[in-house]
Amino acid sequence: MIQVGINGYGTIGKRVADAVRQQPDMEVVGVAKTRPNFEARGAVEKGYDLYAAIEERKPRFAEAGIDLAGDVEELVAASDVVVDACPSGIGADNAAMYEEYDTPALLQGGEDAAVVDASFNARSNYDAVEGLALVRVVSCNTTGLSRLIAPLQEHYGIEKVRATLVRRGGDPAQSGRGPINDILPNPVGLPSHHGPDVNTIFPDLAIDTLGLKVPATLMHMHSINVQLEDPPASGEAIRDRLAGERRTFVIPEWLDLDGAGAIKEYAQDAGRPRADVWENCIWGESVTLEGDDLYLFQAIHQESDVVPENVDAIRAVLGETDAETSMARTDEAMGLDEGFGTATE
Amino acid sequence: MIQVGINGYGTIGKRVADAVRQQPDMEVVGVAKTRPNFEARGAVEKGYDLYAAIEERKPRFAEAGIDLAGDVEELVAASDVVVDACPSGIGADNAAMYEEYDTPALLQGGEDAAVVDASFNARSNYDAVEGLALVRVVSCNTTGLSRLIAPLQEHYGIEKVRATLVRRGGDPAQSGRGPINDILPNPVGLPSHHGPDVNTIFPDLAIDTLGLKVPATLMHMHSINVQLEDPPASGEAIRDRLAGERRTFVIPEWLDLDGAGAIKEYAQDAGRPRADVWENCIWGESVTLEGDDLYLFQAIHQESDVVPENVDAIRAVLGETDAETSMARTDEAMGLDEGFGTATE
Repeated sequence: MIQVGINGYGTIGKRVADAVRQQPDMEVVGVAKTRPNFEARGAVEKGYDLYAAIEERKPRFAEAGIDLAGDVEELVAASDVVVDACPSGIGADNAAMYEEYDTPALLQGGEDAAVVDASFNARSNYDAVEGLALVRVVSCNTTGLSRLIAPLQEHYGIEKVRATLVRRGGDPAQSGRGPINDILPNPVGLPSHHGPDVNTIFPDLAIDTLGLKVPATLMHMHSINVQLEDPPASGEAIRDRLAGERRTFVIPEWLDLDGAGAIKEYAQDAGRPRADVWENCIWGESVTLEGDDLYLFQAIHQESDVVPENVDAIRAVLGETDAETSMARTDEAMGLDEGFGTATE
Repeated sequence: MIQVGINGYGTIGKRVADAVRQQPDMEVVGVAKTRPNFEARGAVEKGYDLYAAIEERKPRFAEAGIDLAGDVEELVAASDVVVDACPSGIGADNAAMYEEYDTPALLQGGEDAAVVDASFNARSNYDAVEGLALVRVVSCNTTGLSRLIAPLQEHYGIEKVRATLVRRGGDPAQSGRGPINDILPNPVGLPSHHGPDVNTIFPDLAIDTLGLKVPATLMHMHSINVQLEDPPASGEAIRDRLAGERRTFVIPEWLDLDGAGAIKEYAQDAGRPRADVWENCIWGESVTLEGDDLYLFQAIHQESDVVPENVDAIRAVLGETDAETSMARTDEAMGLDEGFGTATE
């Protein structure tokens, strides 16, 4: 069994912990947190061994009545792989610790690509990270773009990708974020970081990205143009191909899912943990071919689409199995069934 | 003096009435409304003669203590041109009345293009509407796109326009509109109506548009890609050219206007009536050339950018003056000075 430590138990860390625990070939050694809060309490309730990420703050856990299993260094030493889900920038700071204990680590997409040995997306470059010490699972948006780009590039060739990312201003619990009642070009200058980030997975791809922020918290929305080198006869062929991919959910019209709110409600109804939506949600009606220009809309759940990717990255960095076997195992264990069940077959 | 009647005194009508009144060569005959409300009271306060748009509702005005000057037919008969700013669809219903009184009429962009003799944008096709009976001033978004397309097509040629329109869900006073906390592909299927609508002004232009709706009320935001036939050496050349155009405000970085809220506040500070923003607001930093692909962000004030266009359309349909003379006269009378004053010279 692969022993997995999770350093950072916030939005991503807590989800990765649960997903790892569900895997038949993995065990959660424990999770590390900097301070006691509702998520620390949740970790205890779920029976995860809790480690202190910051030595000086250990008394705070004692005051809150939470028992610690030890320090984060002990967690790292006991793990075959660590998933670092600390806030952006902290992962880079932790790199020396992982190196000290000779434990391969997976950082998240908020870290600088220059910090790591390679960036990772399961569908796109699973084999590229075997044996590396420091791997970065790319961000939610870059994961969503990569899942789309990989099959399009393989089957039709890509002349250029032009994408406008209409981003949620913050997650539902990030009460300090904005905007409220505004639409912000963000960044104002081009390109947004997403294009260069996609190039960490597809180095030779021509891609221009524009980013905006809007007063919404549920999911990101991508307005996508992919100019294809060798387009098929119709958009339907592309729609069918995307529907056949793992972790892409091509929304049929009759489900009447008009936006992120409806998708999240569908996920709640389906009993998804935390109403998570691990798949790219692509509106089938939007998949349109105009000459060699493909257009589509896809919604990306910023809190969860990287979770199965982190699970796969654990196997990939250890050289366990191949991409398809790993992805199938991950998805089956998590209950990741595109269409949220069998209702859309 | 051109005698102008305004049928419909809501968001657009009240603004057009004020702008017409400011023109040295025009007079407002009066304005027509269907019912007494805060805007009817405003019309009385401003001294506009008020006409009843619906015969049966005249007693309501009397009950509200508002004197009427007559019926809408009398307004139409007394006008050289009528600006029809009624809700979408009503303009088409009114067409027979305008024909009966042989009064040329300007409908708004919510009407079907097939209803009118021609569609209008001052910068793009001023000369095309002279002598026509029924002309449509295109919508706020189509106006914003046309103002941008005209100079780009003239100077560089356009291979294709690809635009994502991140639309405000409703105007500030439209309390029944949504979404709240969501991002909706709208329409889900492509293209949005904006592309075909731009083709009523530029019939041969290749343009694909995608529309979304978000929880914001202040302005629309356009994420624009224009593939140029003969691009200049740099994006700066395009930025300078756009800055030299009427009714385009290229926002300099130092103004620190990060979104629609800041632009509207700037308009308030500048003393603009109703904090209106008549210009395309283009972020200078966003104007970027990647090969032959031009990208930029522009914000469009849905309540007011068509107002100067309606004023010009009055002269255009009567064959008065040329486009540049009309636009200059309109802008001077309204106080439309790109940059909202002289602060950005």
